[in-house]
Amino acid sequence: METLMKVFDKAIETRLDRRSTFVALGGGVIGDMCGFAAAAFLRGVNFIQIPTTLMAQVDSSVGGKTGINHPLGKNLIGAFYQPQCVLIDTDTLNTLPDRELASGIAEVVKYGLIRDPEFFRWQEKNMQSLLARDPSALAHAIKRSCENKAEVVSLDEKESGLRATLNLGHTFGHAIENGIGYGQWLHGEAVAAGTVMAVDMSHRLGWIDDTIQERVLAILQQAKLPIAPPEIMTVEKFKDVMAVDKKVADGLLRLILLKGPLGSCVFTGDYDRNALDETLRAFCKC
Amino acid sequence: METLMKVFDKAIETRLDRRSTFVALGGGVIGDMCGFAAAAFLRGVNFIQIPTTLMAQVDSSVGGKTGINHPLGKNLIGAFYQPQCVLIDTDTLNTLPDRELASGIAEVVKYGLIRDPEFFRWQEKNMQSLLARDPSALAHAIKRSCENKAEVVSLDEKESGLRATLNLGHTFGHAIENGIGYGQWLHGEAVAAGTVMAVDMSHRLGWIDDTIQERVLAILQQAKLPIAPPEIMTVEKFKDVMAVDKKVADGLLRLILLKGPLGSCVFTGDYDRNALDETLRAFCKC
Repeated sequence: METLMKVFDKAIETRLDRRSTFVALGGGVIGDMCGFAAAAFLRGVNFIQIPTTLMAQVDSSVGGKTGINHPLGKNLIGAFYQPQCVLIDTDTLNTLPDRELASGIAEVVKYGLIRDPEFFRWQEKNMQSLLARDPSALAHAIKRSCENKAEVVSLDEKESGLRATLNLGHTFGHAIENGIGYGQWLHGEAVAAGTVMAVDMSHRLGWIDDTIQERVLAILQQAKLPIAPPEIMTVEKFKDVMAVDKKVADGLLRLILLKGPLGSCVFTGDYDRNALDETLRAFCKC
Repeated sequence: METLMKVFDKAIETRLDRRSTFVALGGGVIGDMCGFAAAAFLRGVNFIQIPTTLMAQVDSSVGGKTGINHPLGKNLIGAFYQPQCVLIDTDTLNTLPDRELASGIAEVVKYGLIRDPEFFRWQEKNMQSLLARDPSALAHAIKRSCENKAEVVSLDEKESGLRATLNLGHTFGHAIENGIGYGQWLHGEAVAAGTVMAVDMSHRLGWIDDTIQERVLAILQQAKLPIAPPEIMTVEKFKDVMAVDKKVADGLLRLILLKGPLGSCVFTGDYDRNALDETLRAFCKC
């Protein structure tokens, strides 16, 4: 919020007017904050995203979700505000640290799991090329990710249902980020561990085959992403943070869970509570 | 901004979810802030306006403009966010101070001047009833004001042109409020003085008859509203604040000016700069 206020101060001091354009050049936090600043400054000015991390290129820059964090949770304050344009230059990935690259891959894997089994199979075959930053592999992964996201968002911009499926692994992941302190793990690292937990729960519910669970673990391990929350996470910490998740409605926590063949998922609060408890206990020491 | 943050803190601490409804009970500042809080909390929750001042009932609660003030200007940070409902109980006006009542009347007069000459003539005949808080006179004034505002907003929600005409007198008025410090004058008092200045400028440009100028002065005086800025306002102060007005585009200050018969106005940057300077000098000692 302090940084956001500095953006407003500067915009007002330099007398930017309603025809101004805010350009977000950077990763997801920059894009989210700049987008919210653009949404709120003079009640809305033009906005262009130029994402420079894989995470921002495959996910956060597309779809118009903007916002800032609150000490009690991520992105609790924000707006749905679409950019006029998203400009992706894959050359920016040449200098991206390995951990940041892997973090973005967690979201790429997500698209395969929730709706695009062919893309998932492509990733299984091409993970080494992606990690080696092969330009054509990266370009394909970014393109298919943006296409998947754009399709979902165009069907459900304000997240009345379908769009929530983009949050596979994010509810567990947000709890991890919040529980250990933002910035300790990269977002995609938390999402990867969260995805493993969501898939574990889906499996406990009998909603997916063993092979799907195995393939999820294998692809995330190949990308050197975490497949479990850090040891300091407790069942209580998970429950505390998940209770303030934006997807809670009428006190009920809805989750995105895989169900059926590869590429199928549901967004539902209609699941056996015991399966959630068992998953949390399986991944936490206390 | 500090108060807004307290609203967010409370909303998050009490774990309000996306199906919550924020209710703004109070005057315009409450409605503007609560509306922006509703727009930004979890990227948008339900919102109901229950305005309790005449100003909020005839103007600020209708049309979805929400926002908060910045030390350098009013409502520079905000959102267009429509309430699900605006509920007006005219009984709340029974305990409204006289100055607050008059402040709201400044906006009622505005609707007559910019688009509803019949309403203006009705006001000329019924001003004493309004000031005496005659319930049926107040109800009519509120109803016609909301109808006028709703018509304008439905044609131009995001203020690409027509909606700006609702700001007759507001550019000069904002400069007064900012120049003397917010809260020194009520908003409608500043708008009244600003309206007199805008009408004076329209008259200098030869765009309206003498009689219109005289009738504006007469009706505002009847309502015991200011018809000139306070003495501490200088030409320089006006120019400084007007330069950061939201209606500045490409460095050009556009103004709402009366032009033609009663009930006609324009929103334009195409006017003789000398007329603006002359108006400012006519109303300021230095």
